[in-house]
Amino acid sequence: MLKIKIIVVDRTRSPFLAEGESFYLERLQKYAHTEWVEVKPARIKKGRPTKEILATEGKSIAKRLGRDYIIALAQSGKAYDSEGLAARIDQLSLGHNRLTFVIGGPLGISKEILEGANETLSLSRLTLTHEMSRLLLLEQLYRAFTIINNEKYHK
Amino acid sequence: MLKIKIIVVDRTRSPFLAEGESFYLERLQKYAHTEWVEVKPARIKKGRPTKEILATEGKSIAKRLGRDYIIALAQSGKAYDSEGLAARIDQLSLGHNRLTFVIGGPLGISKEILEGANETLSLSRLTLTHEMSRLLLLEQLYRAFTIINNEKYHK
Repeated sequence: MLKIKIIVVDRTRSPFLAEGESFYLERLQKYAHTEWVEVKPARIKKGRPTKEILATEGKSIAKRLGRDYIIALAQSGKAYDSEGLAARIDQLSLGHNRLTFVIGGPLGISKEILEGANETLSLSRLTLTHEMSRLLLLEQLYRAFTIINNEKYHK
Repeated sequence: MLKIKIIVVDRTRSPFLAEGESFYLERLQKYAHTEWVEVKPARIKKGRPTKEILATEGKSIAKRLGRDYIIALAQSGKAYDSEGLAARIDQLSLGHNRLTFVIGGPLGISKEILEGANETLSLSRLTLTHEMSRLLLLEQLYRAFTIINNEKYHK
C-alpha cells in the first residue's frame, strides 16, 4: 500500500480545521498509509527576517524528508484539476512507495525545501492560510483516490 | 455599508465546515452586512436528470436574487489571486450597494443562473465540494476586506 507523509509546520490552531483534517485523514487510510508530521514552528520575533524563520523551519522539515518523493505546496506551483491530480498521483504511485507532501508555515516555505522538492503543487491561485491548505490537500487526496478507484465521492 | 448576500443550496451537513462558516460570517460583519441564504435542495432521485434538478434549484435561487449584482461561483469562472479578488470587490462596491454570490448544490448550478449572472468566479481549478466552496469563499471575502482596508490578516 502506498505510504503518504504530510509534513506541516506547527499544530492546527483552528478547531474546525483540525476537525476537518481528522475527518479526511481517517478516510484516507483506506487508500494509503497516511502519516501526519508536525514540525516545530520557528519563533516569529519582531525584526527577525522571514528568510531566517523559513530557513529554521526548513531544517526541521528536511530532517523528516528521508528519501521520499517530495511534493511541496506552493501558490506558484503546478495547478491541476482534480482529475489531473488523481492521474498524477496514480502515475507517481507506480514508481514510488512513498510520497511526501510539504506545506509551509504561516510565512511560507523555505527556498531550500522548494528547490529540493521533486515537484510543486498549487491548490489555488488564491492565497490560502497554511491551515486551510492542509484541509484542502487532504480533501483533494481523498478525492483523487476515489477518482483512481472509480468510486463515488463520499461527502 | 456594503451588503453581501450569499445564496447556497441546502444547509451545511458537515459539522466542521458549518463551524468554519459561522466563524467567517461573524468576522465579515465588520466589513459588510453579510446575509446567508439557504434555498431548498431539489430531491435527487434515481433517473431524475441533473438538468431538471439544477433547473428546480435555479428557480429557488432566482427568487432570492433581486436586482443585486450577481457573482456565480463556477469552476470554469474567472480565477483571481487574493489581491486581484480584493481589487475587484473594492471596484464593484463603488458602483453597487449589494453584491450577491451564488454557490450551487452538490450537482452544480443551473445554466440559467450561470448565464444570468453578471460575472463568474472560480476559487480553484480543483473540484471542490459545494460545502468546501462556501468556507473558501467566506475566507476569501474576509481576506479581501483585510486587503482593501490594509489590515493585518487575523487568522
